[in-house]
Amino acid sequence: MNFSVTVLGSNSAIPTLQRNPSAHLLNANERLFLIDCAEGTQLQLRRYKIHFQRIKHVLISHLHGDHFYGLIGFLTSLHLLGRKDELKLYANPELKQIIELQLAASRTSLSYPLIFHPLLSNNKELIIDAERLKVYSFPLLHSVPTHGFLFLEQHHSAMRMRHARSYAYCSDTSYCEDIIPFIHGVDLLYHEATFLHGMAKQAHEKFHSTAFEAATIAKKARVVKLLIGHFSARYDDLQPLLNEAREVFPCTELAEDGKKFDILPVTPNTFSENC
Amino acid sequence: MNFSVTVLGSNSAIPTLQRNPSAHLLNANERLFLIDCAEGTQLQLRRYKIHFQRIKHVLISHLHGDHFYGLIGFLTSLHLLGRKDELKLYANPELKQIIELQLAASRTSLSYPLIFHPLLSNNKELIIDAERLKVYSFPLLHSVPTHGFLFLEQHHSAMRMRHARSYAYCSDTSYCEDIIPFIHGVDLLYHEATFLHGMAKQAHEKFHSTAFEAATIAKKARVVKLLIGHFSARYDDLQPLLNEAREVFPCTELAEDGKKFDILPVTPNTFSENC
Repeated sequence: MNFSVTVLGSNSAIPTLQRNPSAHLLNANERLFLIDCAEGTQLQLRRYKIHFQRIKHVLISHLHGDHFYGLIGFLTSLHLLGRKDELKLYANPELKQIIELQLAASRTSLSYPLIFHPLLSNNKELIIDAERLKVYSFPLLHSVPTHGFLFLEQHHSAMRMRHARSYAYCSDTSYCEDIIPFIHGVDLLYHEATFLHGMAKQAHEKFHSTAFEAATIAKKARVVKLLIGHFSARYDDLQPLLNEAREVFPCTELAEDGKKFDILPVTPNTFSENC
Repeated sequence: MNFSVTVLGSNSAIPTLQRNPSAHLLNANERLFLIDCAEGTQLQLRRYKIHFQRIKHVLISHLHGDHFYGLIGFLTSLHLLGRKDELKLYANPELKQIIELQLAASRTSLSYPLIFHPLLSNNKELIIDAERLKVYSFPLLHSVPTHGFLFLEQHHSAMRMRHARSYAYCSDTSYCEDIIPFIHGVDLLYHEATFLHGMAKQAHEKFHSTAFEAATIAKKARVVKLLIGHFSARYDDLQPLLNEAREVFPCTELAEDGKKFDILPVTPNTFSENC
């Protein structure tokens, strides 16, 4: 059964022709979750042949444009394509009015129910409790209210011997050890690494992390694999960011647009790639 | 001196990997005007190597998403790139609150003055009166308040013998002969042609035009050249739309992403391409 993450965008702040800003797609046993939705995400979904209408849940980490400016276009395209199934949206409460105002301006009444769930908690909170998956939000440390997300596979009692797979998404955040209990031991941790550590001062001023810091969190949280992303547009070559992280935490990969990471169910802590 | 139009998007409604939705760039003697700004327009500007910061005026025809969902990202990128020069924005008054709400949600105070000019008139209105260019708005016939734009080159008295070049932008609109006085005799008319005339009923229901209707307007308005665009995503092959328009108005071209149309100053009604 599938448990995979597809990177739809790996840049911070400004879209470039090489890297779109933040969006990830989690496929958890054929349930599709869209996590963040920067401008251009709907085109990325087309590019990587992911069927829009199969997405049932959208989670927005925070209201910086590089994480949600593509949402209204995505919601509108679902409508224009005739969606009937409800869509659940988890985000900062301010997003509701932003969406409603834009739909009102275009005199659009969506063809499907859009169920809005405000993210309000300053603690770990269970936000989705589905048959075979639990999703939690937890606070990150950024310049505006920001949530990370933890996806945790659930097994029926008959399947308890199997490893329950997990994925955590942490963008954007300063280096923050408070998040370690929320992400401890996950199979795959996505943690932003906007800058190289030589720019740690700028990173802290902007409430972002360096590759070194992302790797330090991964190490302290004893995760299986680290995925770094949200790269500053100043870096054409990402290898130095990867090298910096791997010095601290060898099992690190670069988030690159279109790359898919499979988490295997066979045994605990096993990946399709060597680590 | 340059007077050219670059097509940044030619699709209607939904972006596809082949065609982005509406946006045009007018270069009038090195003044750059962005007309409409669908999602992904900032990437199209990068793709066609147009320097963002040189744009001083943005005109939004109406508040359907395929004409303005890229605006907030474009405005934010100008800010992140350190713009200082003011930007003038002409649009339906409802857009102001949509922008302000999104900037507030991200705690962004723009690095440059954004001067908002609401488009309110139901008649031809002079909206920009610059040294060598006048720009007018005029009403189109669509399901929400929509404006067309007329760009008219101005000459100093010493240059009066030269042809004053003109460009009119009409998207989105039903077939509407009321617009003919506003666009009469222009060098280049962009008129939407969402459908083939076999779908005239659907076109009218949605307040759009067919290729046949766009060409009929061009013929009746005695324009020099017609550019059709805003194509329904159902058309992979645009040749039938071009053929249909050319049967009525031979000097018709397809708006295609990245295509540039130069209007020459040498003699009245002369184009760089044969017509």
